[in-house]
Amino acid sequence: MIAYSQYNPVRLADVPYWDFETDVAIIGFGATGASAAIEARQAGARTILFERSSGSGGASALSGGEIYIGGGTDAQKAAGFDDNVADFTAYLKLAQGPCVDDAKCELYGREALNHYQWLKNQGVPYRGNYLPGKVIEPIDDSTLIWSGSETAAPFYTKAKPAPRGHVIQHMGWGGGRPLVDILEARARDLGTQIELDARAVALIVDGKSIAGAVVRIDNTYKFVRAHKGVVLATGGFVFNEAMRRKYCPDSFRVKNPIGDKDDGIGIELGVSVGGDAIHMDQFFTTCPWTIPADQAHGVFVNVAGQRFINEDCYHGRVSRCAIDQPGGKVYLLLDSANFSQPFDLAGITIAGTGETWEEVEAELEMPAGTLSATMAVYNEHALEGRDPLFDKQPPILKPLDQSPFVALELNFETSFFSIFTLGGLKTSVDAEVLDRSGAPIPGLYAAGRCTSGLPAWGHGYSSGLSLADCTFFGRQAGRNVAMT
Amino acid sequence: MIAYSQYNPVRLADVPYWDFETDVAIIGFGATGASAAIEARQAGARTILFERSSGSGGASALSGGEIYIGGGTDAQKAAGFDDNVADFTAYLKLAQGPCVDDAKCELYGREALNHYQWLKNQGVPYRGNYLPGKVIEPIDDSTLIWSGSETAAPFYTKAKPAPRGHVIQHMGWGGGRPLVDILEARARDLGTQIELDARAVALIVDGKSIAGAVVRIDNTYKFVRAHKGVVLATGGFVFNEAMRRKYCPDSFRVKNPIGDKDDGIGIELGVSVGGDAIHMDQFFTTCPWTIPADQAHGVFVNVAGQRFINEDCYHGRVSRCAIDQPGGKVYLLLDSANFSQPFDLAGITIAGTGETWEEVEAELEMPAGTLSATMAVYNEHALEGRDPLFDKQPPILKPLDQSPFVALELNFETSFFSIFTLGGLKTSVDAEVLDRSGAPIPGLYAAGRCTSGLPAWGHGYSSGLSLADCTFFGRQAGRNVAMT
Repeated sequence: MIAYSQYNPVRLADVPYWDFETDVAIIGFGATGASAAIEARQAGARTILFERSSGSGGASALSGGEIYIGGGTDAQKAAGFDDNVADFTAYLKLAQGPCVDDAKCELYGREALNHYQWLKNQGVPYRGNYLPGKVIEPIDDSTLIWSGSETAAPFYTKAKPAPRGHVIQHMGWGGGRPLVDILEARARDLGTQIELDARAVALIVDGKSIAGAVVRIDNTYKFVRAHKGVVLATGGFVFNEAMRRKYCPDSFRVKNPIGDKDDGIGIELGVSVGGDAIHMDQFFTTCPWTIPADQAHGVFVNVAGQRFINEDCYHGRVSRCAIDQPGGKVYLLLDSANFSQPFDLAGITIAGTGETWEEVEAELEMPAGTLSATMAVYNEHALEGRDPLFDKQPPILKPLDQSPFVALELNFETSFFSIFTLGGLKTSVDAEVLDRSGAPIPGLYAAGRCTSGLPAWGHGYSSGLSLADCTFFGRQAGRNVAMT
Repeated sequence: MIAYSQYNPVRLADVPYWDFETDVAIIGFGATGASAAIEARQAGARTILFERSSGSGGASALSGGEIYIGGGTDAQKAAGFDDNVADFTAYLKLAQGPCVDDAKCELYGREALNHYQWLKNQGVPYRGNYLPGKVIEPIDDSTLIWSGSETAAPFYTKAKPAPRGHVIQHMGWGGGRPLVDILEARARDLGTQIELDARAVALIVDGKSIAGAVVRIDNTYKFVRAHKGVVLATGGFVFNEAMRRKYCPDSFRVKNPIGDKDDGIGIELGVSVGGDAIHMDQFFTTCPWTIPADQAHGVFVNVAGQRFINEDCYHGRVSRCAIDQPGGKVYLLLDSANFSQPFDLAGITIAGTGETWEEVEAELEMPAGTLSATMAVYNEHALEGRDPLFDKQPPILKPLDQSPFVALELNFETSFFSIFTLGGLKTSVDAEVLDRSGAPIPGLYAAGRCTSGLPAWGHGYSSGLSLADCTFFGRQAGRNVAMT
């Protein structure tokens, strides 16, 4: 028996027979694959969805079900936010930083309102209300939250802020599972054939075109003919240590991969036929330091007692910048007006306390005049409502002057810094997988975290960008492969 | 006529005729290619070296001709340094940081003394003396200099320091040209056939093996049969903007690519046949801020008035950390005891002066209590010979307390920050190009900056690592391809 373990493509002429024949084969059944299936079926293409696990979900189902949508939604308007395509698009570009894909930002910027309507049309419920404050996910069933760095420097100076995190109506955390359930039901209703416990191991090539895939089911290789093409929707590679070592070694600074055993197979399959994997060094991380909410008023310092970020940024941006700091840990400084017991899950500990910042400094064994000078400068200006160093904004900007004071420790080894990868296949706005010259590989599409998409840059991540990317470009993949 | 512009491999069966037949084809005639040719010829293999330009050189010839060699050389011993393989190897690993390739460090750690002898055997002259101090390249014809971060934290705490930059005997800067000239003469003497103005455009594959290459000479495609294999020795990709945008976008923070139009073709050719390109986000940068030498005693702060590095590190490590700072510039603080006019080429300007650090702070428009507090803490401890924040070591550690004071500006846009890329093909210690599963691609070898080699990590670069990698692993490539 042939071993397909290295993801080497199989030539069409070498395929002995077909176990499945279809127009479209989709690999992976998270939000990306489900969205692709819905569109492919609506375009009339026979569609089979192959999923490695015993059910749908992937990393999407482990998420909060939040989708980054702007440009003037009903929920934004009802809450009095006058968002528009230009500011929304500008923010998307800023959030991609040096990894920016202008065309993807512009397309999604223009189409997000239609995409929101599409989500509703599939049956995704939105309560429609706005939940103010700095929350990671709603603990009730609210729709609209601030989920990025919109109001923080430098973003607010270049794009008018608006909240854009749109969360499925679902009580509490974990809206990703019901979101995928709804998309799955829709895909099934539309006649998608679904094959579970089916692991893709190779693509089948006809010259330069993709003609199908080899999948393993019950320890047997099965040959799938996909007359129109294949959609890769397999997620990132955070659980593949060998890939991380080669392409994203800085991600080992933190310890908590999240996802559904994301092993990078879609990236490997795409590259095996000439696809281009880009920005493979980029990753998301966050430690939930804004829980309880008062902690959001804290000031971060590194082991040298220096601030390094305007702490009103998105918690993930702050966390990503935190792990750039030397010394393996950072401190979150709080006063008694803003302290309560840290969130258990976060693994955040109390490293020092004091009646003055000088006492905290001494307890942390920092040289005199370091942390205390930092806090003197911070408090002096915070009282005036400004932060000349990092441009942190009110109301998050508050002096920390109510003793006693405390320094919480976020330790890169022992605190809960979740992580997932952002690099992947380079795709067009039509979700075509591109080769290294920029040309589409005929018959091969991809979306979600096996691609470099809307959340391309770890330092610019905002909640909801990944599911926006998965669902919107998943749809692009499904529609475009069906129209091949 | 077929267009080979996208580096797509050509099947052996599709080659119409042979313009060249050889055992070994080497692509690129810098130090890597020349070293490979010498070994291939000495092993008895017919060898043709194809070079895009009209002469040898590449980026190697634009370098200082410095090679990182340790373990106890004659020059080290004569200068009283008791270096050994263990400390040398440990330093090599530290210098690769998260990108470490243990096997390459261990092999080169063991073999560097033999490699030094080999260089001498080829005719590379070494005066044999030691030039103390913190120099970028000798301005005389000295042999041994400090060329890395050996004496600086954290390196000195984990590997006993020794100077290891071994420079060809050559008056002044620019030893790279005579180094390549010597290797070229040797390669020619040994009977290497050299084809200039010959640009490689594709590899020729026989199943999974590399059977030759297509080169363009006088606007005509020429077919090269290489019975034993092909060696890629083409350098990095710093002059290929499209590649940098996709794989190394942070490199655009600075503006001065150096090299010989390094376009990444070797990486593209390797990947076109299944090679694995790794650590593509890594790059070297430096701004020559240690010229004049007294400036090495300066203290760096970012725009928030914060120190960020022990400034006794290698100038390139300091520079690489500098461009991680926000605000597009950093300041090098000096007192009158350590100031002289900055090196013209560096584009370093005077941004502020003052009789006190408070005055400098004000002139730089930093909030009161930022830079001045930084310098108060620094000077207090420097007087005691220590740096509790960054562990900078004497004698570079000196208080800056002789007024007037000055702040020099290193601007990422306008100062001269040179840059070249470090990412490239993943290769074995035998210089075999590896595919994504880690298996060698039969008949394909590579070395130098088209690979991820000894200088794998931008933050750990030390002068001489790249030429050590080029010459040593170039030799590995030449010897191993010849013995295929």
